[in-house]
Amino acid sequence: MAEAGRMGFAAGMSLSKATRTVSIARHEGAAAEVRDDAIAAEEPLEIRVGGHSVAVVMRTPGHDRELAAGFLLTEGIVRRREEVYDLKYCRDDGGQPEENILDVVLAPGAKVDLARLTRHVFTSSSCGVCSKATIAAVQAQFPPIAQPVHPRREVLAALPDRLRTAQAAFALTGGLHASALFGPAGDLQVVREDVGRHNALDKVVGHAFFAERLPLADSVLLVSGRVSFEIMQKALAAGIPAVVAISAPTSAAVEFARAGGQLLVGFLRGERMNVYAGTLAG
Amino acid sequence: MAEAGRMGFAAGMSLSKATRTVSIARHEGAAAEVRDDAIAAEEPLEIRVGGHSVAVVMRTPGHDRELAAGFLLTEGIVRRREEVYDLKYCRDDGGQPEENILDVVLAPGAKVDLARLTRHVFTSSSCGVCSKATIAAVQAQFPPIAQPVHPRREVLAALPDRLRTAQAAFALTGGLHASALFGPAGDLQVVREDVGRHNALDKVVGHAFFAERLPLADSVLLVSGRVSFEIMQKALAAGIPAVVAISAPTSAAVEFARAGGQLLVGFLRGERMNVYAGTLAG
Repeated sequence: MAEAGRMGFAAGMSLSKATRTVSIARHEGAAAEVRDDAIAAEEPLEIRVGGHSVAVVMRTPGHDRELAAGFLLTEGIVRRREEVYDLKYCRDDGGQPEENILDVVLAPGAKVDLARLTRHVFTSSSCGVCSKATIAAVQAQFPPIAQPVHPRREVLAALPDRLRTAQAAFALTGGLHASALFGPAGDLQVVREDVGRHNALDKVVGHAFFAERLPLADSVLLVSGRVSFEIMQKALAAGIPAVVAISAPTSAAVEFARAGGQLLVGFLRGERMNVYAGTLAG
Repeated sequence: MAEAGRMGFAAGMSLSKATRTVSIARHEGAAAEVRDDAIAAEEPLEIRVGGHSVAVVMRTPGHDRELAAGFLLTEGIVRRREEVYDLKYCRDDGGQPEENILDVVLAPGAKVDLARLTRHVFTSSSCGVCSKATIAAVQAQFPPIAQPVHPRREVLAALPDRLRTAQAAFALTGGLHASALFGPAGDLQVVREDVGRHNALDKVVGHAFFAERLPLADSVLLVSGRVSFEIMQKALAAGIPAVVAISAPTSAAVEFARAGGQLLVGFLRGERMNVYAGTLAG
């Protein structure tokens, strides 16, 4: 944890919130023992905007303000830091903070599109419902990647080890996804963990949102799992030009990246990697 | 595939729909080659009920009717087989079937709760938003497990190999989640794959829905990945008394299983397994 703290991981994150200890029966062949086991914490977070409930997400507690802000941004509800005046936990009748209800207080004059959450964004167009139409509809919502990036292979190859060093709760529970943001030279900037892979990314984006670093031009996002359409959507919303994954991308993720000018690398393992969209340097 | 077909896997599933071939650059150290690579297909499916759009899910094409029916059942929109008269693909202006729009035609007199999809199910109660309240709210929607099950350890230990044999598209792409249903003796009944783990489960439930096998008492569900709250919710909706996973459960999944009388086993690897809720035989 000391190591993780120096890398910027532990700020606001506590292992006691991200994990739970439960009593389990561990079987190995005919032998069984009752023991304590650390598992990934999953709790509901109700996100409100100006007192109105807009979503309930199942998330790993910790970095809730980042999650709420990142969620609102990557879903296209808010656009700029100035629109958000404050985020605060609600209080119960006794005045105690409710840890699972977070209210986003908008700045005076901010106009947000709350209806976006309840209407279906991907309504069928005249050409029907297909990947191409869906991708076009989503990409029209967000600014395109201004400048494609072409990182060096050696830079990408070094990222998974840096993520693993920082991913403290996963090592304990085996149950958390991670998203990590790196600079162009492969320097780790922020890593977040969550039971939901989209939540981990929303937390990273929320971190950049509060630091007023959006759009995240020149950044490389590393995700621990697979890359779906939704991950690419959220990355584009934050202006991230490069997404790199330990595991496989889906077809819609590849189409999305190619249509929008994002680099997409999968199966990053040691010196091996597959480039699905864009190109590396050299 | 011949093997998978004999195990009931391939009925209606085609690898050509579940996978896509894309041209990629494969790097290994300084060497790079351009080659074709199979990736998991992900396409939007719009689910309509009586012509009204109720959801768009990103899914792997194949078993779409099962997915739509399973989704409506596990989300609590429909309850019984008799409520669904037919499911059919829409047709475009030229009369061609739209493969990504599926309309659920209700039986005369069937009453479904479409509002459930757009309102927030987990609205905060007087006790606030917490796992306990969320679990109680979801469990109140579905019949409880009538009879807890206590399978033998040896039966569970044999399941992962049976799943791997049947999981054809995953072997190709590395990008698909699987859900498989087994009988009490460990006999494989149905397996479905999807880029979304909840979709894979919905397809399995939809299969049972059309076979009029719900509730799935005595069944054991095996999932390839992690077990979240949502997986336990969908399993309960189908009456599944036992959920077994290759990987980790979350805290909310464990709480949900314990509150509802479901068996929950995680980290099933060879002769080792962790029992998080319920007990095995003996």
